[in-house]
Amino acid sequence: MTTVRLLLAYDGTDFHGWAAQPGVRTVAGTLGGALGRVLGEPPRLSVAGRTDAGVHALGQVVSFEAPPTVDPGRLQRAVNGMLGPEVVVRSASRAAAGFDARRSSRARLYLYRIDTGPVPSPFSARFVWHRPGDLPIGRLRPAARLLVGEHDFRSFCRSQGSGARTIRTLRRLSVTRVGHEVQFRAEANAFLHQMVRSIVGTLVAVGEGRIDPKAMPEILAARMRSAAGPVAPPQGLALLHVTYGRS
Amino acid sequence: MTTVRLLLAYDGTDFHGWAAQPGVRTVAGTLGGALGRVLGEPPRLSVAGRTDAGVHALGQVVSFEAPPTVDPGRLQRAVNGMLGPEVVVRSASRAAAGFDARRSSRARLYLYRIDTGPVPSPFSARFVWHRPGDLPIGRLRPAARLLVGEHDFRSFCRSQGSGARTIRTLRRLSVTRVGHEVQFRAEANAFLHQMVRSIVGTLVAVGEGRIDPKAMPEILAARMRSAAGPVAPPQGLALLHVTYGRS
Repeated sequence: MTTVRLLLAYDGTDFHGWAAQPGVRTVAGTLGGALGRVLGEPPRLSVAGRTDAGVHALGQVVSFEAPPTVDPGRLQRAVNGMLGPEVVVRSASRAAAGFDARRSSRARLYLYRIDTGPVPSPFSARFVWHRPGDLPIGRLRPAARLLVGEHDFRSFCRSQGSGARTIRTLRRLSVTRVGHEVQFRAEANAFLHQMVRSIVGTLVAVGEGRIDPKAMPEILAARMRSAAGPVAPPQGLALLHVTYGRS
Repeated sequence: MTTVRLLLAYDGTDFHGWAAQPGVRTVAGTLGGALGRVLGEPPRLSVAGRTDAGVHALGQVVSFEAPPTVDPGRLQRAVNGMLGPEVVVRSASRAAAGFDARRSSRARLYLYRIDTGPVPSPFSARFVWHRPGDLPIGRLRPAARLLVGEHDFRSFCRSQGSGARTIRTLRRLSVTRVGHEVQFRAEANAFLHQMVRSIVGTLVAVGEGRIDPKAMPEILAARMRSAAGPVAPPQGLALLHVTYGRS
């Protein structure tokens, strides 16, 4: 067997998230089905970021074992013919022995887009949270800076069992304005469930004056979901990039 | 009665074009239905650009007569609540007496986007023509320049009755590269049916070496659809802007 690595983009709007589940349409189920038609049977997929329902990807990475005769270029064309443009294999290659899309990854970078314009745009509506009204990014940035670093992010994730490890290293959390949009870029070694959306929802509450920017250390220390702001909706989120070492 | 003017954006993917037709879903039919629910009955719409099936709009202009008590802001919110984000009223206002979206317009500007990247993008696929492989824009531009001006564009439109007036003034036809995209901007006093798509299809044939850039005057002079290149597909086209005088 040989290991195949795919770089994947998808519009998550009409999927119930990444993870295969019986009876619902998921990215893993759909991709696995297409790969199965090429390879003879659906491979076991390892994925860098298990995106939630409605979340998109521009740079998702997937790996799986395939027969040594597999031709990655042909596999790419066949899958794109079946699933594109909703799900697109941007590139396909043989990976080094031992490569695993999830275990080998070092960092993930997510983008969250908020459209603050007065009316939604038909051209970006699937990929942004339309939240009309200005967000003062000068107020959001100091709060964002307080979240960067190694912290217990239990307050910023969907509730976990008490034994779950919730310490993560947030390497970067930027807030920029691009026309009518406010964009957040968050990079971490790994993310907890709904972590980016919880951070964005909390920063929006800061922008609206409902949470003090200086309260971030207290919210982290509380280690309780209810201490943070609301969870931002999924459609604004996209997995942009996954970083690997020299493996 | 008073005249109301709407600035409209829409994703044309799931519409059979602008013009209302019984039994099919059109932008005019859908918008007219929503306006009718607010005004009591669907108004008679005048439109600047009768977009074809699958063609989008960012700056479409529509006008209609309404009772003098109409509140344009309320009308906008009500229609956006019913139709957004697929069809969005970007602004609504009372127009000067005698304003008519079609008859008062002086020029229309269209954008055509070609994605030349190796694989389609799930994020732009609804709004571009995915045509993999480079287009040498240095070869397209001289051909584009030969089309600017007042000409009989009969070769660049869907066949018309022999008595139809097919002279138009193409004020601008630019070709630019934006990342993987080649973008065309075409502005004219008015356009013939499928004129922008015929021009783009012909320029692509020039880029592919199938038509000589210097052949443009001959193609115009032929006054026959078969003299030009193929018609580019609709999804790459969007009406960007309509110009009005001081009316």
